[in-house]
Amino acid sequence: MYQWARQLYPLCRSLTGEGTRQTLRYLQNMLPGMQLVEVPSGTRAFDWEVPPEWNIRGGFIADARGRVLVDFADHNLHVVGYSEPVDRWMSREELEGHLYSIASQPDAIPYVTSFYERRWGFCLTHRQRQALGEGPFHVVIDSTLEAGSLTYGELLIEGESRREVLLSTYVCHPSMANNELSGPVVTAALARWLLSERRQLSYRVVFVPETIGSIVYLSRHAEEMRRRTIAGFVVTCVGDERTYSYLPSRRGDTLADRVARHVLKHHAGHFDAYSFLDRGSDERQYGAVGIDLPVALMMRSKFHTYPEYHTSLDDLSVISAKGLEGAYQAHQRAIEVLEHNARWRTTVLCEPQLGRRGLHPTLSTRDGGRRDRRVKAMRNLLAYADGSLDLVGLAEAVELPAWECVPLLQTLEREGLLVRVCEGDGEGSRGREAFGE
Amino acid sequence: MYQWARQLYPLCRSLTGEGTRQTLRYLQNMLPGMQLVEVPSGTRAFDWEVPPEWNIRGGFIADARGRVLVDFADHNLHVVGYSEPVDRWMSREELEGHLYSIASQPDAIPYVTSFYERRWGFCLTHRQRQALGEGPFHVVIDSTLEAGSLTYGELLIEGESRREVLLSTYVCHPSMANNELSGPVVTAALARWLLSERRQLSYRVVFVPETIGSIVYLSRHAEEMRRRTIAGFVVTCVGDERTYSYLPSRRGDTLADRVARHVLKHHAGHFDAYSFLDRGSDERQYGAVGIDLPVALMMRSKFHTYPEYHTSLDDLSVISAKGLEGAYQAHQRAIEVLEHNARWRTTVLCEPQLGRRGLHPTLSTRDGGRRDRRVKAMRNLLAYADGSLDLVGLAEAVELPAWECVPLLQTLEREGLLVRVCEGDGEGSRGREAFGE
Amino acid sequence: MYQWARQLYPLCRSLTGEGTRQTLRYLQNMLPGMQLVEVPSGTRAFDWEVPPEWNIRGGFIADARGRVLVDFADHNLHVVGYSEPVDRWMSREELEGHLYSIASQPDAIPYVTSFYERRWGFCLTHRQRQALGEGPFHVVIDSTLEAGSLTYGELLIEGESRREVLLSTYVCHPSMANNELSGPVVTAALARWLLSERRQLSYRVVFVPETIGSIVYLSRHAEEMRRRTIAGFVVTCVGDERTYSYLPSRRGDTLADRVARHVLKHHAGHFDAYSFLDRGSDERQYGAVGIDLPVALMMRSKFHTYPEYHTSLDDLSVISAKGLEGAYQAHQRAIEVLEHNARWRTTVLCEPQLGRRGLHPTLSTRDGGRRDRRVKAMRNLLAYADGSLDLVGLAEAVELPAWECVPLLQTLEREGLLVRVCEGDGEGSRGREAFGE
Repeated sequence: MYQWARQLYPLCRSLTGEGTRQTLRYLQNMLPGMQLVEVPSGTRAFDWEVPPEWNIRGGFIADARGRVLVDFADHNLHVVGYSEPVDRWMSREELEGHLYSIASQPDAIPYVTSFYERRWGFCLTHRQRQALGEGPFHVVIDSTLEAGSLTYGELLIEGESRREVLLSTYVCHPSMANNELSGPVVTAALARWLLSERRQLSYRVVFVPETIGSIVYLSRHAEEMRRRTIAGFVVTCVGDERTYSYLPSRRGDTLADRVARHVLKHHAGHFDAYSFLDRGSDERQYGAVGIDLPVALMMRSKFHTYPEYHTSLDDLSVISAKGLEGAYQAHQRAIEVLEHNARWRTTVLCEPQLGRRGLHPTLSTRDGGRRDRRVKAMRNLLAYADGSLDLVGLAEAVELPAWECVPLLQTLEREGLLVRVCEGDGEGSRGREAFGE
Repeated sequence: MYQWARQLYPLCRSLTGEGTRQTLRYLQNMLPGMQLVEVPSGTRAFDWEVPPEWNIRGGFIADARGRVLVDFADHNLHVVGYSEPVDRWMSREELEGHLYSIASQPDAIPYVTSFYERRWGFCLTHRQRQALGEGPFHVVIDSTLEAGSLTYGELLIEGESRREVLLSTYVCHPSMANNELSGPVVTAALARWLLSERRQLSYRVVFVPETIGSIVYLSRHAEEMRRRTIAGFVVTCVGDERTYSYLPSRRGDTLADRVARHVLKHHAGHFDAYSFLDRGSDERQYGAVGIDLPVALMMRSKFHTYPEYHTSLDDLSVISAKGLEGAYQAHQRAIEVLEHNARWRTTVLCEPQLGRRGLHPTLSTRDGGRRDRRVKAMRNLLAYADGSLDLVGLAEAVELPAWECVPLLQTLEREGLLVRVCEGDGEGSRGREAFGE
Repeated sequence: MYQWARQLYPLCRSLTGEGTRQTLRYLQNMLPGMQLVEVPSGTRAFDWEVPPEWNIRGGFIADARGRVLVDFADHNLHVVGYSEPVDRWMSREELEGHLYSIASQPDAIPYVTSFYERRWGFCLTHRQRQALGEGPFHVVIDSTLEAGSLTYGELLIEGESRREVLLSTYVCHPSMANNELSGPVVTAALARWLLSERRQLSYRVVFVPETIGSIVYLSRHAEEMRRRTIAGFVVTCVGDERTYSYLPSRRGDTLADRVARHVLKHHAGHFDAYSFLDRGSDERQYGAVGIDLPVALMMRSKFHTYPEYHTSLDDLSVISAKGLEGAYQAHQRAIEVLEHNARWRTTVLCEPQLGRRGLHPTLSTRDGGRRDRRVKAMRNLLAYADGSLDLVGLAEAVELPAWECVPLLQTLEREGLLVRVCEGDGEGSRGREAFGE
C-alpha cells in the first residue's frame, strides 16, 4: 500500500480533471470490475450541481528579473484548487489578496480551494511569503475551467447475499498523504482482498471526489443503498501510526458503529472516540437526514486533529506501511465480523455435557477449567446464546473479540449445540431486513 | 424587583388575612387582568379544609414593670403564625412552653406556625430568651381566628395556543426575603414581561398561600391544567446570588425538567441539582400522584440549605437586585425556549449547498470554517434536524444554548432548508397533545 | 447453624452415595415435609445421564514397610472423587500420574473429582508428596461404582399464593466448610423459619448434588417452576465473614436481582458485585437459555475468590456463627421483601393532611419535620406511590431499606391513604402473572 501511495502522490487531484482520472485509472488497473463513471458538468444532484472540470498545466509567481518565486511545478498545493486562469503583472499589494500562508507553520504550504466561486490564488510557505519582495510580479496560472465531467470509480462485488457493505473513500486531494492518499490505497487493498474469494455479503466500493462526489453518487443510488446496506465505512485518514480514531454515525448505535467500536476496542486497545459533531468527510452525506445510512469511521489520526493536516507537511513521511496495515486490518476484521454476523440459540436445556464431546476436561480441579480460555469461552457462548444477541452482542457479552468467537461458534454449531436464529434480529427494521432475507 | 420586595417586606403575610390580601393587591396593581379570589373558611379541597382567617394587630411579652420584652411591632416573626388570642399573666415556667428560639443562632428569630392546631406562642432570639428573667409576664396576642376567607391571585394570559405554561409562587410568608418575597416579585416581573406582547403560548400565573393555596387551586383547576399545561415552574427562593439550584419533577424528564436543566447549564454554568426527595414547596402538590403536572424549579439558594432559612436573618440583605435578575433571566430564557419549541426536519437530501446562499464561506481553508461558530452551528442543526428532536433536544445535540439556535433555525426555515414537523413529538401523550393541536 | 455444620463436616459427600444420603437424612430430621428422592443411575436428564452410585469405605498409599503415607481415614479429600477401586503395588513413577497437590499451597489437600470418566487418584499436601519416597507403594482404594441412585431433597412449603420462591443448595461436597456446608445449613435454617408460620408465598427448597442434581431436578420440574417462580436464590458460600458477594442472573434485572442488590446494599453496606460470567454453581442451570429462572446469589466470599477454596484449608475455621448468621439474615430480608412485595397507589389527590391523622407534627418549625425520619418517609412513600413501583422500586425511590418501608406502608394502607394495585406490575410477563393471579 505504501508503494501505491508513493506512486499516486505526485498527481494533482481535485474535484474533477485529469489528475483525479489518472488516479482512478491506476486503481482500476488493480481492481477488476471497477467502473469509472463520468458525470457531465452542470448535472444536478440534490441541492448541488456538478461544477466545471478543472485542469491545470502550470502556474508561477515570478519577479521582474524573471526569477520564479513560487512554482506549481514544485508542489501542486501552490495553486489554490479550482483557480481560474491568470497571466498578469501586478504589485505586491494586489497580489497580497491572492496569497495564503500559515504564520504559525512557516514551512507549510496550506491546502486551499474555491470550488464554487471563481477565484485564483497561490499558497506558499510563510517564509516564501516574507521573502517575496515588493514586485512587480508576473503571475501566471495556466488552467482551464470548462464544461467537462466529474469522474468517480465504483466497484460492486456480488456475494451470496444481496445485503451489502459500503466502503467509500475520496480521490480529490492533491499531494497529501494521510489525508488523503491513505484512504484510496487502504480501500483498494481491501477491495483486492474482497475479490480474492466469494463472500457472504455484497460490497459496494466507491472512490469519489469528496462532498460533490458522494452527493452525486447518492443522488443515483441512495434508495437502493438504503434498502441493502447493513453497514458502511468511510475510509479516510488511515495512514499514520499515532492513534486510532472512531467517529460514529449520527444515531451512534448502527451495526457499523457497534462493529467499529468492538473492533477498535480489541484491535487497537485505546482509541479516540469522537462525536458526529466532529464529522468532516463523506459521512456528512451518508449520514444526512433522509439518507441515514449506517456509516461509521475507523481512522488513524483524524482530520483536523494532527499538525500536518491540510498542508504540504502531510507528506509521505507522515504515513507508513505499518500505519496503513493497522487500519487495513481493522477494516478487515470489521468485515469478517459482518460476514459471520448472525444470532445463535443454544439447543439443549441446561448446560450440555461438554466432557463427553471432548470439549471439556473430565477431571475437575480447582484451577484446571479456569485456565482453559477456550473451554470457558464455549461455556459462556452457550450460556448467552439466547437468540437475542448477534455476533457483536455475544462477543461483548462474553468479553472476547468476535473473531475469537467465530471458530468456537462454528464448533458448537457442528456439535449441534447451537443453531442460527434468522427470524427477526433485534436491530430494528434495517436489521430485520438484513437478517430476515 | 428589589424595590417591590422592599415595599412588601413589612407586611405580615400568612395563609390568610389582611397582610396577604394587601400583598396580592399590590401585585394586582401592576398586573392588569389579575383576579383576586376569596375562598371561604371551611371550604373542602381534596383532603383539606380552608382554615379560619387569621388576623393580628399586635402582641407582646411584658414584665411586671410594664417593660415590653418581645414585641410583634418589632418583627412580625415574633408571634407564632396562626396564634390564637391570649391576654394573661403567667410565670416563666408556663411561658416557656410557648417560646421558640434557636440556640445555635442566638440572634435569629425563628419562623414557626401552627395552622391546623390552635396554639399560641412567641418566637424570639436566643439572647432575648436568656435575658427574659423569671416573670411574671404579661402575655398578649391581639389576634382573631374567625370564619373569613383564603385569598389567592390568578392571572391568565391568553396566547396563540391554548397550550399553557404555569408559573406559581406563594404569598404566605411574613417578613423574610429569599424565602419568600423573591418568588412573588420575580413572578410579577415575569408576568409584566409576558403581558408586554402577544405570546405563542398561554400562561397561568398563580399567587397562592403555600400548600393549602395550591391544593385549593388544584381542586378547582387540576383537570383543565392537566389537559393544557406543557411545563410549569414554582418560583421560590430566587433572590440571592450564592448559587443556582434545580429541583426536578418526580418523573424527572418532563419538558419542564429538560428546559430547566438546559437553561441552567448554559445560563448558570454550575448549578446544584436536587432530587424530588428534596421537594418542599408547592411542587409537592403539582407533582403529586394523580396531579402529575410537569413542574420543575429553578432556584437560587434552595430552601432548607442556607443558614438564614426560615429565620429573621433571611432579610433584605440576603437578596439583591443582581440575584433576582439572574433568576428572572433564567425563567425568561426557559419561557423563550418553550415559546419557540418545535421539531424541525431538513428538507433537502444530503447537505444543502450553503455557499450559494451566502451562509457558508466559498473559500475552503483549513481553519476558516471551524472558526465560524455560526456556520458550524447551522450545519449541525441541519445534520441533526431529523424531525425527532425538539428545540431542547436539538440544542443539546449541537451543544449550544437553545436561544442561540432559535435565530439560526429561523434563518434556515426562511431559506426553505428546514421545515417544522408538527405531527407527533416524541414527548409522550402530553407532548403529542401539546404539539399536535 | 455452626453446630449443624460441625456435625455434618466429617461425612464423605459426593454426587451420589451414602455420605450424601446421610447428610440429607440429617436435614430431613429437622425439616418436616422434606422428601428424599432417589433417581436411578442411567436416568436421562436433558443432555446428561445420572452416573453410577459411588461409595467408598477407605483408601491409602502405604510403603513397603506397611507405613500408611496417605489415608482416606485422615481426610476424605485424600481420594479423588468417584475413584474406581484399586489395590496394587506400583512404582513412584506410575503413582505419580495419579497424584494431585498444589505446589503454591504446600499444606493444602486439593479437591479433585472425575465424575464422568473412570479414574482413580489421590490428593495430598505438597509436603506429603515431596516426602513420599521412591516406592514401591501399596495403593488401595476400597470403593464401589455401581448402579444405584442419585439422592436429592425437596421441601415444598405451600403459602397463600401459588407464586413461589426457590432456594437451592448443594450437598455433594465432602469435608469443606464455606464451599460447601454453609449452603445446606443456612438453607435448612431458612426452611425452618419459613415453616414456623403460614406465608404469603410458596417456597421450593431443594438440596441437590451440584450440576447433575439441579439438571435432574429441572428435567422434572422446569415447566412448573417457570410458571410459578418469581425469584430464587442459590445458597452457597455463605459461611465466612470476609465480605458479601452478589452474582446476578444472566439478564441481571429480574426480581431476584433487584431484591438481592437492594438487600445487600442496605444489609451489607459494601458488597462485591460479580457478573454472570463469573457463575459457577447451580445458577448455571437455573439461568440457562430456555430455563431462564430469575435466580441470583447472595454469598459471603464467592467460590474461586478466596485462598482456601476447594482445598482442605476450607475447614470449619473458615466459617463462623456470625458469618452464617449474616448470610441467613440477608436471605431472610430478601424473603420478607418478596412476601410484602406489591405496588401501591396514593388514594387522595395532592398531599393528604397527615396532621389531623396524628401522622405529622402540627407545629411547623424549621428543623422539626426534617428530623422525623418516619414522617419524611411516609410523605415520600405517598409522593412516589403512583402504582408503577413495587416495594423494591418504592424503597429505592425513597432511599430506605424496604423493611423500613413495610410498616409505614401498612400504616398508610390502614389510614386509607394507599391502596394496593394488583393489575399489571411493570415486571414483564413473569411479573404480570406473579402479581395478577
